[in-house]
Amino acid sequence: MYVCMMIIESERSRLRDLLSMLREGKGEGGEEKEGKYVSGEYISRALDISREAVWKYISMLRRRYGYRIDAKPRVGYMLVHRPDKLYPWEIMLELGRFDMVKEIIYYEEVESTQDVALRLAEQGRDSILVVAERQSRGRGRASRRWISPDGGVWFSLIIKPRISVRDVTLFSLATALAVCNTINGKFNFAARIKWPNDVIINYKKVAGILIDMSIEHDAINYAVVGIGVNANVSIDSIERMIGYADKSHYYGSTSLMHELGKAVDRVRLLASLLRELEHIYSRLAYKDEMLAAIRATIMLGPVRVIEGEGNDALTIEGVAIDVDDDGSLLVKSDGMIKKVTSGYVHVRYVG
Amino acid sequence: MYVCMMIIESERSRLRDLLSMLREGKGEGGEEKEGKYVSGEYISRALDISREAVWKYISMLRRRYGYRIDAKPRVGYMLVHRPDKLYPWEIMLELGRFDMVKEIIYYEEVESTQDVALRLAEQGRDSILVVAERQSRGRGRASRRWISPDGGVWFSLIIKPRISVRDVTLFSLATALAVCNTINGKFNFAARIKWPNDVIINYKKVAGILIDMSIEHDAINYAVVGIGVNANVSIDSIERMIGYADKSHYYGSTSLMHELGKAVDRVRLLASLLRELEHIYSRLAYKDEMLAAIRATIMLGPVRVIEGEGNDALTIEGVAIDVDDDGSLLVKSDGMIKKVTSGYVHVRYVG
Repeated sequence: MYVCMMIIESERSRLRDLLSMLREGKGEGGEEKEGKYVSGEYISRALDISREAVWKYISMLRRRYGYRIDAKPRVGYMLVHRPDKLYPWEIMLELGRFDMVKEIIYYEEVESTQDVALRLAEQGRDSILVVAERQSRGRGRASRRWISPDGGVWFSLIIKPRISVRDVTLFSLATALAVCNTINGKFNFAARIKWPNDVIINYKKVAGILIDMSIEHDAINYAVVGIGVNANVSIDSIERMIGYADKSHYYGSTSLMHELGKAVDRVRLLASLLRELEHIYSRLAYKDEMLAAIRATIMLGPVRVIEGEGNDALTIEGVAIDVDDDGSLLVKSDGMIKKVTSGYVHVRYVG
Repeated sequence: MYVCMMIIESERSRLRDLLSMLREGKGEGGEEKEGKYVSGEYISRALDISREAVWKYISMLRRRYGYRIDAKPRVGYMLVHRPDKLYPWEIMLELGRFDMVKEIIYYEEVESTQDVALRLAEQGRDSILVVAERQSRGRGRASRRWISPDGGVWFSLIIKPRISVRDVTLFSLATALAVCNTINGKFNFAARIKWPNDVIINYKKVAGILIDMSIEHDAINYAVVGIGVNANVSIDSIERMIGYADKSHYYGSTSLMHELGKAVDRVRLLASLLRELEHIYSRLAYKDEMLAAIRATIMLGPVRVIEGEGNDALTIEGVAIDVDDDGSLLVKSDGMIKKVTSGYVHVRYVG
């Protein structure tokens, strides 16, 4: 029931390179060619393909993907209009080098990007972005529906976050913060987090987050971060699609287009959001990384813990086994684990 | 009883600029002048001072501060040797632009850099580095002595760490980690942290940390971070100075010079250590900064918390008042504060 756009990798990168030339097109000599004609011969030489192949890709962009490209004999090609689509080559062009996404899977329509990503994650795949123009069975939290018509930014990202299990809720809030920061920064809104997973403008839902995680032995195997942003969605279409049962949990929706009175560039929005996610996730991991560095550097082994001074001093013999998250020394003594906090304590390593 | 080196600010920066020219001295045309003669006329023009003033500063460096500078008539000056001293201009030259230190107070000898820094911190002063060649009453943890003869790196730094009170022990360990990272990175040692405040090479103490903090209403006003590194200290002199009483807490000391078989550049060591501290402290603050950003973005106010689904659902009316450090929502209901963790919970904001 869903249309998966299968495009061979070489074709994708050709389209990306061709569009890169048409969009930002530095011609010979480096002068700006934006909104200007780029010659077929120049494209042919730069991409090392025949003039016929150039024409084939131009036709493909026009007919299959909805680009408007003007062709002037003996002058060249000019990009007139690009469609409001989340095509993978457009995302790649916008992101540039970006380690968090190694592969993009694109659908015109899919049941749920989250389910596709989850299946791939279960197979051990990583750093994959699954994106769709529409979802026919978009999921929200607690198995609720997430209405996902054309015009939204619906995606799921497979990542391996370097955080501890105890920070799972914080991870979800950090994701919501990244969405807020991105839309506030780009459009000067005052979006807020509706705990734990929605983003609100003027008390109306503009984005939602769904995170599925695989946790084993207190370690996070992978997380699939699903984000839906009502970007250029018509609010009527959402209201129409919400059934009576769902409305009990419903606050009213809005979209960026609705609030701004004009459509946003969805490709740029998605790229900015991905960059903000990378930034925030890496910062979230710093403290855990530092604790890991401290644990690798701390001396463990037999200790004598002396609490107090002089005649009142209390001595415990034990073995320092670890450092707690707050920095306390964990000492095993008589089968119990004692948490030694600094203060009037002296720890003597023995032997 | 202590000798404070009072140097007027303009003199300090003149010495720094002059030494900068002698040390790295880019001459006219930008060619390297290291180990080469720099002409008096060039110095005079570059520093906008008279030839007599140049000579005065050269003499000062030689006679008062122990620099060996060769002067060749009609050629210029060449830096032959700089003394193993922690002169503030040397530290400034090595650090370059560095926000954590706005002022350096230097002593040939002082009772305790920590006490000097504490007095300044109590007056509201910030970002001051107090450094000494010797301490006559150096302090360790729990009022113990810290033997501080010539050749060590003894300093105290006033900072206002952006961390929460709950991270105080971690702050101390992070400081120890910075010391370990610096000496391991520079000299390829495997220094380790002896919890909570010493740094050990081969089970012998090479550095110690003493942190005094002023805490009011759960906020940190300031911290004075005192660090002592046995850099070029002769171990004999330490052993001789330790009395019988102190030896009960004594593991044996070592110095970098003793372990390496040669003296280290103390100015460079100090500068590297300060840079590592800045790096680690800023990372320690990231998570708290993120929590602050989440708190600023989260919606608070009246909520209805629904636990479970359908007929078994339990509903609590309350007011969302904050987010806990782990990301839970704190809801006040019937005078109690309930911690709402995500899972099978639905939070409905009311009104």
